[in-house]
Amino acid sequence: MHRLPIWAQIAFRADAYAMIMTAIDPAKYSELANELRTKLVNAQYDLKNSDTSVILLLAGNDLPGCEEFIDVMQEWVDVRYVDTRAFRWPTEEETLHPPLWRYWRAMPRNGRIAVFYGAWIMNLMLELSVDNISGKEFRARLMRLNRLEKLLMDDGRIVLKIWLHASKKMLKKRLRNAEQNPAAELYVGQFNQNIYDVYKKSESVIELLNNTLGEHVAWQWVDGADSKARNITIAQRLLAALEQAQKPLAISGPAVSYNRARSDYLAAIDLSRIYEYSEYRARLQAAQLHMKQLFVKARKHGITPVIAFEGWDAAGKGGVIRRVTRAMPAWSYRVVPVGAPTAEERDYHYLWRFWRAIPRAGKSVIFDRSWYGRVLVERVEGYASDSEWTRAYREIVEFESELVAADCCVLKFWLHIDADEQLTRFRQREKTAYKKYKITAEDYRNREKWRQYERAVNDMVENTSTDVAPWHLIPANSKRYARVEVIETVCAQLGAFIKQHKKKNPPGASYSFHHL
Amino acid sequence: MHRLPIWAQIAFRADAYAMIMTAIDPAKYSELANELRTKLVNAQYDLKNSDTSVILLLAGNDLPGCEEFIDVMQEWVDVRYVDTRAFRWPTEEETLHPPLWRYWRAMPRNGRIAVFYGAWIMNLMLELSVDNISGKEFRARLMRLNRLEKLLMDDGRIVLKIWLHASKKMLKKRLRNAEQNPAAELYVGQFNQNIYDVYKKSESVIELLNNTLGEHVAWQWVDGADSKARNITIAQRLLAALEQAQKPLAISGPAVSYNRARSDYLAAIDLSRIYEYSEYRARLQAAQLHMKQLFVKARKHGITPVIAFEGWDAAGKGGVIRRVTRAMPAWSYRVVPVGAPTAEERDYHYLWRFWRAIPRAGKSVIFDRSWYGRVLVERVEGYASDSEWTRAYREIVEFESELVAADCCVLKFWLHIDADEQLTRFRQREKTAYKKYKITAEDYRNREKWRQYERAVNDMVENTSTDVAPWHLIPANSKRYARVEVIETVCAQLGAFIKQHKKKNPPGASYSFHHL
Repeated sequence: MHRLPIWAQIAFRADAYAMIMTAIDPAKYSELANELRTKLVNAQYDLKNSDTSVILLLAGNDLPGCEEFIDVMQEWVDVRYVDTRAFRWPTEEETLHPPLWRYWRAMPRNGRIAVFYGAWIMNLMLELSVDNISGKEFRARLMRLNRLEKLLMDDGRIVLKIWLHASKKMLKKRLRNAEQNPAAELYVGQFNQNIYDVYKKSESVIELLNNTLGEHVAWQWVDGADSKARNITIAQRLLAALEQAQKPLAISGPAVSYNRARSDYLAAIDLSRIYEYSEYRARLQAAQLHMKQLFVKARKHGITPVIAFEGWDAAGKGGVIRRVTRAMPAWSYRVVPVGAPTAEERDYHYLWRFWRAIPRAGKSVIFDRSWYGRVLVERVEGYASDSEWTRAYREIVEFESELVAADCCVLKFWLHIDADEQLTRFRQREKTAYKKYKITAEDYRNREKWRQYERAVNDMVENTSTDVAPWHLIPANSKRYARVEVIETVCAQLGAFIKQHKKKNPPGASYSFHHL
Repeated sequence: MHRLPIWAQIAFRADAYAMIMTAIDPAKYSELANELRTKLVNAQYDLKNSDTSVILLLAGNDLPGCEEFIDVMQEWVDVRYVDTRAFRWPTEEETLHPPLWRYWRAMPRNGRIAVFYGAWIMNLMLELSVDNISGKEFRARLMRLNRLEKLLMDDGRIVLKIWLHASKKMLKKRLRNAEQNPAAELYVGQFNQNIYDVYKKSESVIELLNNTLGEHVAWQWVDGADSKARNITIAQRLLAALEQAQKPLAISGPAVSYNRARSDYLAAIDLSRIYEYSEYRARLQAAQLHMKQLFVKARKHGITPVIAFEGWDAAGKGGVIRRVTRAMPAWSYRVVPVGAPTAEERDYHYLWRFWRAIPRAGKSVIFDRSWYGRVLVERVEGYASDSEWTRAYREIVEFESELVAADCCVLKFWLHIDADEQLTRFRQREKTAYKKYKITAEDYRNREKWRQYERAVNDMVENTSTDVAPWHLIPANSKRYARVEVIETVCAQLGAFIKQHKKKNPPGASYSFHHL
């Protein structure tokens, strides 16, 4: 095995190795190609009517080869159902978001193929090559990308990873050719030089890749030496992936293990706490002022407050949110009301719509209900399978750690009222003309499942309260108390987050903004 | 009238003036507010089921008033169907796109209300205040914004423009207050100071606004002196707008006038032109190389090639496009295949999906079919009403001038074949397994409308061939000839565009890129 070129080792898998093709003669090529074209288009139409999508990660040190293949592929498939995206250096907009955001934005909708050229591994390597990131950071990011692949596969999506390999000799020859021959230069640019440079000093990268490679999805190595063999091989793999998409989805698998709540967190909440009006006014105003100052500080440091509100129907989320936003300039935040997913949203992984709503560094987002719907309403009402909602605990914890790692201050609140208080509020709403729309028969039906929801909430707290993003359970039988408590908690938590951030990033290393 | 504060004059309209309310007492306010809340929510539900959307442009020199109103509105409406966006300085991403792009991106879908705070006028004023733009540029941009409003209204959308006014005295007092009282500072920030500065030196702005104001939609002036009266007044206007949305749409109006084609442009195309294979190879490679060099230059200058291909079915668009992209690095362009609009796309103005596809400065986009569908297939098949497709000529010309004004090099090609050649190609496709999917019964049906399509194409050329974006009619009976001709035309046109751009922007003033 050690006789293989070092890049081959990166992605070496027995099956891939077995597939390495020797040069194909033109007649054979034409025959194979025609057959593949028909099959690919037919498989695309099957995919169109399915509940999944296919993601082809195309990477490699053979860049001209990658580009040639993309061109050929455009000819072989029905391009109307393919999203081809080339990822290079992140744009400013992208650097102002968590690293995975750019990939989430580009995710293919059900029924479509996405070709991600350069993603995710080449971007990471390029960053390493210019020393933007440390080896430790590289390793951490690679792990997260592996987890992203797992998350997509768990959702029944097909991830195909092709590494297109050019030998050192071939690369060198190409670069020399380009210098001498302007026509060859058509296909060889600065980016090639960059990749070649990475390639030259990449021993440590290779080691890292080898260590973490294919935890969930293996890179498949394709030799770039013969362009015809290359086209056929990759197209065959793509066809296999499309066919795989027709098999029963993994999402209907068994439930994964999670921790049953060790205690009744909700029962432990002291609902008797109240504030008199005068105390309420004074505390609220002081807390709002403090919060405003903290938001200004957060913005300066590129910290992104991400605040999620969950709670019983009629627990007063809207009122709390308005007290929070009251202290923020309108351009600095967005409130995202979360209801049942739209037809479009159902065509993606359930986290997709939340990733899309993450703002650029320094801005804030407030979710009125959140991704926790997966383990609350979707669990209780059976909209998510056991496999889906049990898996979600881990996915959510990972999602939130992604955010925290990118300087998002994740704050999540459960507003708690008891069943009697809820009934009183429902009745009040019915009496108030402009609030009637907030009450439907469904709200009453949900009350019947109070116990099931309690268990779901307790399990949620047990499984998703982490060091970096703990749950805050707020007694909300008194609206006044809840409002003050939330804002004071935001202050305490955001204040601590900023302090910690400053420790990690001493002055001078601080964030710069173009347009704040 | 000259006794009115100067800002009042900006948006003065008799009907608006008549609506100015004196202070409202709390009891009356509560009664009015409750009534409005019910009506607003009901009107929102009616809007939800309609084929239109409502855009509230909220601007003014009373910024705290605007923000307070936004807060109140969140309480009064069902926020799930409202998109609130605050526009401040454009982000880098936005500055790398034509000025209208950010607004198009934020357009509300059918059934929704959008609140655009700061758009579009305050952004423009802020830019003027820091001298980012000249008076001439300001005037031109204002005209374009007026045309955008007209385009939206023509599409049956409701545009409501509210200018919230604070007197100079009130503004000064507020700023003084803020200095002394940190709690008041909650609602007054740097942005207020900016607006106040503009306000102080804004005589010329006012004059400009007065001259161009409300060419299509009038600004409605609301006095910010009494917050209760302000809330009620704006909410009433919003309600009126929502009710207006229920009326029959303007889109079913009469056809607008356009020029019938003065000659048969298609008949004049010489379809006999061909290239022998050896000449084809040589010319193609030379042209591709030249094109590649020009694309590199264009990128350096922040010029964005926007290339649209139209033509008869089987005219060879795909083959031409692949010869174009062959000479470009995969990350630098996107090919956008344009089919029938999706359910989502139908919920917007027809230009929305094309605006969204405009890339950042220096990148390229290639449309495989384009916005011209409106005046071709949609006209001939009756998918667009007479009012819609006749209006489209002007809308398209304006769209393209927007692009050209923002340094997009707009190139549009009609690939022309005759009916016999088409039939031959259809038959060939049917014989080729991997091309069968490209042929359906519909393609044959379309042939029966050949004459109608011919007329539509000639009218299209007559009405949308402009100095800045002329049509290029390409003889395509010979695929080889068409491919070479297109690429040579791209070279000639893009080369000229770059030259002109250099003249306008002498070295030193040239474009800088962060991530190219």
